[in-house]
Amino acid sequence: MANDKKFVEQITPMDEDFAQWYTDIVKKADLIDYSSVKGCMIIRPYGYAIWENIQKLLDKRFKETGHENVYMPMFIPESLLQREKDHVEGFAPECAWVTVGGSEPLSERLCVRPTSETLFCEHYANIIRSWRDLPKLYNQWCSVVRWEKTTRPFLRSREFLWQEGHTMHATAKEAIEETERMLNIYADFYEKDLGIPVVRGKKTDKEKFAGAVATYTVEALMHDGKALQGGTSHYFGDGFARAFGIQYLDKDNQLKYCHQTSWGVSTRMIGGIIMTHGDDSGLVLPPAVAPIQVVIIPVQQHKEGVIAAAEALKDRLKDVCRVKVDASENTPGWKFSEYEMKGVPLRIEIGPRDIENGQCVVVRRDNREKTFVRPEDLATEIPRLLDELTRALYEKALANREARTWEAHTLDELTEIASTKSGYIKAMWCGDRACEEKLKETADVSSRCIPFGVKPIGDTCVCCGKPATKLVYWGKAY
Amino acid sequence: MANDKKFVEQITPMDEDFAQWYTDIVKKADLIDYSSVKGCMIIRPYGYAIWENIQKLLDKRFKETGHENVYMPMFIPESLLQREKDHVEGFAPECAWVTVGGSEPLSERLCVRPTSETLFCEHYANIIRSWRDLPKLYNQWCSVVRWEKTTRPFLRSREFLWQEGHTMHATAKEAIEETERMLNIYADFYEKDLGIPVVRGKKTDKEKFAGAVATYTVEALMHDGKALQGGTSHYFGDGFARAFGIQYLDKDNQLKYCHQTSWGVSTRMIGGIIMTHGDDSGLVLPPAVAPIQVVIIPVQQHKEGVIAAAEALKDRLKDVCRVKVDASENTPGWKFSEYEMKGVPLRIEIGPRDIENGQCVVVRRDNREKTFVRPEDLATEIPRLLDELTRALYEKALANREARTWEAHTLDELTEIASTKSGYIKAMWCGDRACEEKLKETADVSSRCIPFGVKPIGDTCVCCGKPATKLVYWGKAY
Repeated sequence: MANDKKFVEQITPMDEDFAQWYTDIVKKADLIDYSSVKGCMIIRPYGYAIWENIQKLLDKRFKETGHENVYMPMFIPESLLQREKDHVEGFAPECAWVTVGGSEPLSERLCVRPTSETLFCEHYANIIRSWRDLPKLYNQWCSVVRWEKTTRPFLRSREFLWQEGHTMHATAKEAIEETERMLNIYADFYEKDLGIPVVRGKKTDKEKFAGAVATYTVEALMHDGKALQGGTSHYFGDGFARAFGIQYLDKDNQLKYCHQTSWGVSTRMIGGIIMTHGDDSGLVLPPAVAPIQVVIIPVQQHKEGVIAAAEALKDRLKDVCRVKVDASENTPGWKFSEYEMKGVPLRIEIGPRDIENGQCVVVRRDNREKTFVRPEDLATEIPRLLDELTRALYEKALANREARTWEAHTLDELTEIASTKSGYIKAMWCGDRACEEKLKETADVSSRCIPFGVKPIGDTCVCCGKPATKLVYWGKAY
Repeated sequence: MANDKKFVEQITPMDEDFAQWYTDIVKKADLIDYSSVKGCMIIRPYGYAIWENIQKLLDKRFKETGHENVYMPMFIPESLLQREKDHVEGFAPECAWVTVGGSEPLSERLCVRPTSETLFCEHYANIIRSWRDLPKLYNQWCSVVRWEKTTRPFLRSREFLWQEGHTMHATAKEAIEETERMLNIYADFYEKDLGIPVVRGKKTDKEKFAGAVATYTVEALMHDGKALQGGTSHYFGDGFARAFGIQYLDKDNQLKYCHQTSWGVSTRMIGGIIMTHGDDSGLVLPPAVAPIQVVIIPVQQHKEGVIAAAEALKDRLKDVCRVKVDASENTPGWKFSEYEMKGVPLRIEIGPRDIENGQCVVVRRDNREKTFVRPEDLATEIPRLLDELTRALYEKALANREARTWEAHTLDELTEIASTKSGYIKAMWCGDRACEEKLKETADVSSRCIPFGVKPIGDTCVCCGKPATKLVYWGKAY
């Protein structure tokens, strides 16, 4: 191999220093590299292949629900960004500004898009005329820029890749349904494909998107008990439509404003995968997005017939999964570590004795469980094992979340939990922003969401003691 | 329909005003829209779907030849851009500069990437150590920015989508082979999938990429006789490698500089498709990239069984092509015009009489040829007709190119042809830049390329009369 990396020795144990463990993994699993562009990252082939798989799976779901992809300019003129007041207030502080084009100063500076509501709105105002034009269900895959002060690969960087759906509807009801539909698509993708359990809920006003009436979220809990906002879906009412003059002539011959949504997930998702499933040997990838689902490693490969047998196994598998044979000159032990670091879900070992016995050894990445499989059963056994592994990842992450979900009924209790444990703290809230801010101040927790379908655990606010009907998940977050 | 567009009436005939015809098509076929961002375009769903098909087909070819996708930052610090001298000279005049991030002026301004050689080089310098690391075959799909003064949708815009391959090799020979391999992939894609014949050749020094040793190109001739540079492939030698310190330890234990290539095609391709195949009824799309390959239009659809019969035809086709039934309330005539404008390769008409006769009518977009096909034969006939159509598009475009390729042996002859005809002018050239510039001045033509495998037509320079061995295709270009 190019460089004699000794993966296992180099990685910081997660219980010793979770942040360093994370940084080690993104580098040593070859997901990213740094460059001279501060706060931005290079997504290397192995990392980008994960993103391509995410894109493929989500894009399919978006298209099946009637969405179409478009591409908007990456620049937003300052005056356009300012059209909706709350929106510009939220985003202007973190914009990157282009002020010179060619060798001339621009007459109006251009923001590199932090999100594209304003551009979509301008376009929709142009093309929507009648109720027959609705709904408009557009999505865009692109990169966006937010000038963050502290950055971490995948979790928070000045530029990141994402998709942003922007839709227009005739009625509030239809727009709200769309917001829910897309939130459910995200939740389903997280749980079924990524093996990451999520809490669906609504953001408080303090935490909602700049310009939105309501923001819905899927929240995931990382291995260390910190939360990660996994994806958001916003309902805008007709606020932007009024600011941008997006009206349609309804069947009753009345001009009406459209109702709007937007929703997005980003390369953060990859950070979520790492911090939910990873362990001290490296990444653990859910099969749905793993660039390599199965790696076949010949043992005693110099012996006659071993590499050929490995290739024969690959032939049996190549139509049912993403499979690779590594017959490079490294030792099997080195390869085991390498593909564990890279989180390949299943490893197949095959050596002279296995050939003799008419079998091969399949080892699961998550729990290292070994199964002996006959080559002729591989094409049915491997997909089954991959599914089983995804479910096991989900169950393990769910158990972690359950073990890390606490209840607090008083401010003291909440502060005590926040300072000694990590995870979600369930507590009642009166709805007052002052209480939310006080919890941040005293316990350093933010409201993650008001979860759907979770029963109240009391009827008074954990902070002020006044009547409260809202149960909130509080926590520390990435 | 939303708005009662009458396509056929609104489009300018191509022979009357080709530029206006082009502008009409990009708007009326719903490919693009304008926005308040000057010089940038919105790629609408129908236009973007063409790009997605192009991406899918090319990405497959790239991956089959061992390339991996990555993502680099969209910003380039000014000092990094300046590292290779010729390169910065070529690109600095058309850079867009970010000078403010958040609310603070940046200590170093950042260029929005016009191309990413410098970023790839910096990364390669980081990750390449030994001959075992080579070759590195990376590609990136992204948007780039060049601050053009005059812009036209797809052909020249301040922001455009493209792919840029950047590869590193141990030897010059391998790098040159890569340059040729990728040029051939582009040529093959143009000819087989897009039905656009191309001339493969080498650019003159004047026309080559800033920083390259050699630039290879595929040139296509548009319907109006103007040329379009369809894609380029550059050989860099070790120039950037020296500027960025990209060295590897070879098997002989010597440190050596890498040899480099880059290659790219962009959304210009869509402009090329429009101007090669389009006609006065609108777009004509090659089936490989057509978002809808077959549209089924029920005739007298209010009669019982007609829509059901149309749907039944769709069921027969949905596994062999991208097919759609339009059972909207518009008249068949309106629909015919609509899908002709959108360039859908094949239209199927089915009405009560067809049902009675156990047939349907298939109409080709390019020549309006009608075929009667029995429903049970559709799944074999349609793919055949789609292939036939692609080949017919190619033949027609080739005939246009051949009819528009001239030879000139003297400057007078060349000037005369350039002022009265449009197309390629084949003429000998001594290799002197002064002659190339003089031809630009006197005849307003540029060198398109020195084509591969085309015989010389003389032995003296068309301009200065000195000995010449290079045959050049000259012409006006987009």
